Amino acid sequence: MPKYLLYKLEDLLGFTEAFFRKYGVSEEDAHIAADVLLSADLRGVESHGLIRLYTYYGSRLEKGLINIKTPVTVVQEGLATLALDAGDGLGQVAAYHAMQSAIEKARQVGVGITTVRNSNHYGIAGYYAMMALPENMIGVSFTNAQPLVAPTYGRTAILGTNPIAVAAPAANEKPFVLDMATSIVPIGRVTVYNKANQPIPQGWGIDKDGKVTTDPAAVLQGGALLPLGGTDVLRGYKGYGLALLVDIFSGVLAGSAFGADVAQPGTDRSARVGHFFAALRIDAFRPVEDFRRDMDALMQQMKNAPKAAGEERIYIHGEKEFELEEQYRKEGVPVMEPVVEQLKEAGAKAGVAFDLTSVGEVNRSKE
Amino acid sequence: MPKYLLYKLEDLLGFTEAFFRKYGVSEEDAHIAADVLLSADLRGVESHGLIRLYTYYGSRLEKGLINIKTPVTVVQEGLATLALDAGDGLGQVAAYHAMQSAIEKARQVGVGITTVRNSNHYGIAGYYAMMALPENMIGVSFTNAQPLVAPTYGRTAILGTNPIAVAAPAANEKPFVLDMATSIVPIGRVTVYNKANQPIPQGWGIDKDGKVTTDPAAVLQGGALLPLGGTDVLRGYKGYGLALLVDIFSGVLAGSAFGADVAQPGTDRSARVGHFFAALRIDAFRPVEDFRRDMDALMQQMKNAPKAAGEERIYIHGEKEFELEEQYRKEGVPVMEPVVEQLKEAGAKAGVAFDLTSVGEVNRSKE
Repeated sequence: MPKYLLYKLEDLLGFTEAFFRKYGVSEEDAHIAADVLLSADLRGVESHGLIRLYTYYGSRLEKGLINIKTPVTVVQEGLATLALDAGDGLGQVAAYHAMQSAIEKARQVGVGITTVRNSNHYGIAGYYAMMALPENMIGVSFTNAQPLVAPTYGRTAILGTNPIAVAAPAANEKPFVLDMATSIVPIGRVTVYNKANQPIPQGWGIDKDGKVTTDPAAVLQGGALLPLGGTDVLRGYKGYGLALLVDIFSGVLAGSAFGADVAQPGTDRSARVGHFFAALRIDAFRPVEDFRRDMDALMQQMKNAPKAAGEERIYIHGEKEFELEEQYRKEGVPVMEPVVEQLKEAGAKAGVAFDLTSVGEVNRSKE
Repeated sequence: MPKYLLYKLEDLLGFTEAFFRKYGVSEEDAHIAADVLLSADLRGVESHGLIRLYTYYGSRLEKGLINIKTPVTVVQEGLATLALDAGDGLGQVAAYHAMQSAIEKARQVGVGITTVRNSNHYGIAGYYAMMALPENMIGVSFTNAQPLVAPTYGRTAILGTNPIAVAAPAANEKPFVLDMATSIVPIGRVTVYNKANQPIPQGWGIDKDGKVTTDPAAVLQGGALLPLGGTDVLRGYKGYGLALLVDIFSGVLAGSAFGADVAQPGTDRSARVGHFFAALRIDAFRPVEDFRRDMDALMQQMKNAPKAAGEERIYIHGEKEFELEEQYRKEGVPVMEPVVEQLKEAGAKAGVAFDLTSVGEVNRSKE
């Protein structure tokens, strides 16, 4: 069980902003990037948070592979649609503005859709979908990503874990926030098992010959993740189809890279990640209060349903994350000890010391 | 291996139209309903085709539970959005008009979204998504359905198999047509195993206590299907999240029934099925020819990728179905022998004889 140090959210935000500022990112953009990154740690999705600050962003900023200006330009615009080019800028900054535009268009005509080409990793997909919530809208956010997933009957990684995020508000219940990779698990999960020398569950990934393996090293060395559903018998081709769907909307429609052509973070070329955002104004279809009431009713149907033997609770998507967020805002945001070390090193390189005072520590299992 | 009789498509269409006409459905509406139903058989999705002609449509028309007029009314309308009420009419007819309206709006402002409340089973979800293809648009079609699926950690069926269909055109390649239930398999697949007295694969369904079972009878008698992904270890909560997503868009947003409240076909009340449709005009984002070219490239990346040991081909979604359609248009559409008997009985009840001349027969395995 790895040890986690707890830090105040505002302290971590301050450090992360300062980190981006040191590379020349504007105050406003650094704030957006930091807010998106920390929202992942805050919601318990540590794989998409500070752990990537240097490994993805810092290292690519250092090499000039991310344009610090995020020079977003309009490719095409209509009443309900907008195609943007992020100019190799920060994914978070381009995505934030893209979702804002989608919301603005939805305010005008009921729905707004924005695509983004030539971007970088944008962090947690759900962040942008959730921007729709205070506007009484449903938010949608897709992105493609570097190849890690094999298509059904294939054996090489030529699709990203291409997430689907959708957020919809309720009344007294927490909002519905689905934020899911279209692979069974993210690659980071396999890395954890590999470091722990433990076999992965049957079905998560394949080896270099395309055979399902329980050896995490075989997945990491020339193998691939499997799409949601896994093998044929459990209909993994549906997960493969969802990964393609996301790539069609965020890669092909946006006019960005797609499939195997999205760059791996370690390579010295533009990532050319593509994103897709949509906002739907609920009251274009029915009164908001009716929608919210029925969302509560749907959620309560789920929560109050009879439980399977040995289970005590049925969850709604996003619910666990909202509970963690509440707890972490009070008690501090947990950062794994090796990540604290990474942040110290990254800070030293960038010229901004990670000298935050931890407000506590916890031991927490990874799964 | 069940025996199939082959019939000319136009003969089957003629019978099906006449069948609907006998219940008082207009010529135009009968044509739409027949075309949607037959498109399922034609694409090899027999579970959604003629097999349901009496069991769903005929029986509900007989009882007056489907309004033969399909009195579609506008609940609310905007430049890019439309909310319709199907007035308990035929799902196919309401859905066809709804998708047409979404396409018309997309023609005007780049995107069109239509919801439908108070409808019935609309057949194959992909039919409506595919209506976007000749318009150089991407089509989206969701529907909720009668409860058959348990949420993760639950043990009762309170969600439908809620399908997701998305269609996008390519250049020389066949279009991408994803049309997938968000459960692992449809209930019909479990019924087939039950009739054959064969165990189902581990993971498809649970018994009345919520335990994963390989006994198809246990799934059918008080058990439930599992969402895509199956149990927790393979991330079945993602499939559960997708089922909720579809219900939020097509049930809650549309102002229709949702979750456990969508009626089972056998019950004597309005089904109150809800649908959701979207059309996106590709050239609102980038030139159509660029999109089509890149779709080909994405598909070729998949098809030309190295195959897993023992596999010879990587498929794109819809590809197998287009191949079947081509074959069936030439050689005749296969109808399972017991379904032919059903059609004869149904025809006798409705007063339209099923006296078509079969053009051949084949034996075909079900899986």
